[in-house]
Amino acid sequence: MAGGVGSRFWPFSRTKRPKQFLDILGVGKTLIQMTYDRFSRFIPKENIFIVSNQQYEEIILEQLEGITKNQILSEPMMRNTAPCITYASFKIHKLNPNANIIVTPSDHLILKEDEFIDIATKGLNFIKNKDALVTLGITPTHPETGYGYIQAHSGQTENEILKKVKTFTEKPDIKMANLFLESGDFFWNSGIFIWSLTSIMEALKEHTPDIYILFKEGIDIYNTTSEASFIEKTYNECNPISIDYAVMEKADNVYMIPSSFGWSDLGTWSALYTHMEKDENNNAINGNNVMTYKTNNCIIKMPNDKLVIINGLCNHIIVERDNILLICKKEDEQKIKHFLEDVKSEKGNKYI
Amino acid sequence: MAGGVGSRFWPFSRTKRPKQFLDILGVGKTLIQMTYDRFSRFIPKENIFIVSNQQYEEIILEQLEGITKNQILSEPMMRNTAPCITYASFKIHKLNPNANIIVTPSDHLILKEDEFIDIATKGLNFIKNKDALVTLGITPTHPETGYGYIQAHSGQTENEILKKVKTFTEKPDIKMANLFLESGDFFWNSGIFIWSLTSIMEALKEHTPDIYILFKEGIDIYNTTSEASFIEKTYNECNPISIDYAVMEKADNVYMIPSSFGWSDLGTWSALYTHMEKDENNNAINGNNVMTYKTNNCIIKMPNDKLVIINGLCNHIIVERDNILLICKKEDEQKIKHFLEDVKSEKGNKYI
Repeated sequence: MAGGVGSRFWPFSRTKRPKQFLDILGVGKTLIQMTYDRFSRFIPKENIFIVSNQQYEEIILEQLEGITKNQILSEPMMRNTAPCITYASFKIHKLNPNANIIVTPSDHLILKEDEFIDIATKGLNFIKNKDALVTLGITPTHPETGYGYIQAHSGQTENEILKKVKTFTEKPDIKMANLFLESGDFFWNSGIFIWSLTSIMEALKEHTPDIYILFKEGIDIYNTTSEASFIEKTYNECNPISIDYAVMEKADNVYMIPSSFGWSDLGTWSALYTHMEKDENNNAINGNNVMTYKTNNCIIKMPNDKLVIINGLCNHIIVERDNILLICKKEDEQKIKHFLEDVKSEKGNKYI
Repeated sequence: MAGGVGSRFWPFSRTKRPKQFLDILGVGKTLIQMTYDRFSRFIPKENIFIVSNQQYEEIILEQLEGITKNQILSEPMMRNTAPCITYASFKIHKLNPNANIIVTPSDHLILKEDEFIDIATKGLNFIKNKDALVTLGITPTHPETGYGYIQAHSGQTENEILKKVKTFTEKPDIKMANLFLESGDFFWNSGIFIWSLTSIMEALKEHTPDIYILFKEGIDIYNTTSEASFIEKTYNECNPISIDYAVMEKADNVYMIPSSFGWSDLGTWSALYTHMEKDENNNAINGNNVMTYKTNNCIIKMPNDKLVIINGLCNHIIVERDNILLICKKEDEQKIKHFLEDVKSEKGNKYI
């Protein structure tokens, strides 16, 4: 899933170039490239499909070597994850009704790839013989208020590694997050799912029949030249709804694998900062020509060809891209979306 | 005099584009244009001569409408003000040996132009009948440590407005500057001089005979096609020395007019800040697309086409030009020259 147009990393991310297509960690690969490489280690490339907004088709073909146009599912508009997964399920069904599927966001970080592959493989083995919707829950390391949580039935395990899921919860406040952490039954919702095509089709049909029926109408159209226009019409008729809300919270065959493979959704500058390399003054610097003096705990992302001299900043985000410069105190990063609204209302869409 | 290559406003000023050729106040005119316009009000344009480094000839012709190539005296290298003034004196001597002259830096600010013209006119009248070297001394408003001072003989006035000069002093420390301010006999050295050609030629001959003789050799060459090569050779042989040191401190016919026409040498970002328009948060902002939040007492100079969002800065200088960005605490502006040395040693001359 690579359809996001997140604005939290503006101006580094832009509508025309959202986070998943950026080398946001400064490691030489974009996030979707890292995700693609991770899955290519145990999934044949021809079995990898990317659902994204149609405006990103070109950038996907550029960034992912070995991916062809027919592996890209182009969405005409944003409709959240339930329509996205339904579309992909019907399309794959036509290719192989016996497929087993891993669904994953394209813009998350996973540090321990071997452990991830091990867990994903266990999940795939589990669903071979069982009608189950499996999700990967991340064992929390701190009382994070920025993530949704999954509550597992305590003690109850299947196959020694899987737990049955009790509920999905929204982002908690800090008090609640502390209780979640203490209880040991709560896990971060990674948005990574493992299921057989049969199980997810059945679940969609049962729990979100409106969407299921809309996409079922195209059963003879998928993988034909009429697919794009059918999808255009269908997405128009769909309500935006997440797969968590549409299916996972309602189904009673949901399982979770507790996981600790160094996961982050990289959803904020602070999360990003945690995973960037720091210099001796704790500055995370990307850019070949940045010189700092009396500056610490900053995130600095600058074009390589730009000479930047910074003296006397502390706990700031300093980012430039495409002739847009943002300087923002780290503690105010939640305000970036408000700045963006001001930019939009004062200058129009050209900077968004 | 427009030969400076000051680096204190880097990266807004650059070697290829020093301060005098910049609209550093953001008023729509460069400093040399402001100086030229000020003098054009009471001096015929054809009587205005500009001495500058030869690399700036083109920029002068661009910026000063009505100035022709033969009014520009091109210096092949920097040799301070004594050679500059000697060169100009000999060249003008050939055109009009009876000329009276005002010498002025091209990059200073004068807010009260009418008062300036009034005082300059009084100076010109004074030297008509007297062999005198007149300088304009600025009545100090605060114990400035960034300027040289002129000490006048106390009480002694000529013509009711002129004072005889006792000594020239270097930049004082703050204790001394306070004493200067209290005494009432000390004035800021503006570097503006008024004299007859006869008087200055006589003074050069007497007090700095080495330089005088070097330039006298070209007496038949000024205003001919051989002038440039003669000047090239002569500047090479000259020691760099200021007119203050070479002549003014030695001559005993030096007079001063106490002046209060809103003068500043605009020699530091702080001096500049004083004279820039401020917004309600005391930010001095140049740039059409700058948006600030929780930001105050800053100097912000940005290209007009650049979108800039600043949140949470206080007492900083933020300047960008030619793809070079400088962020520096105001209190550290003296360090900019050290940053520049680091840039030079790490990146070479291309950013200087």
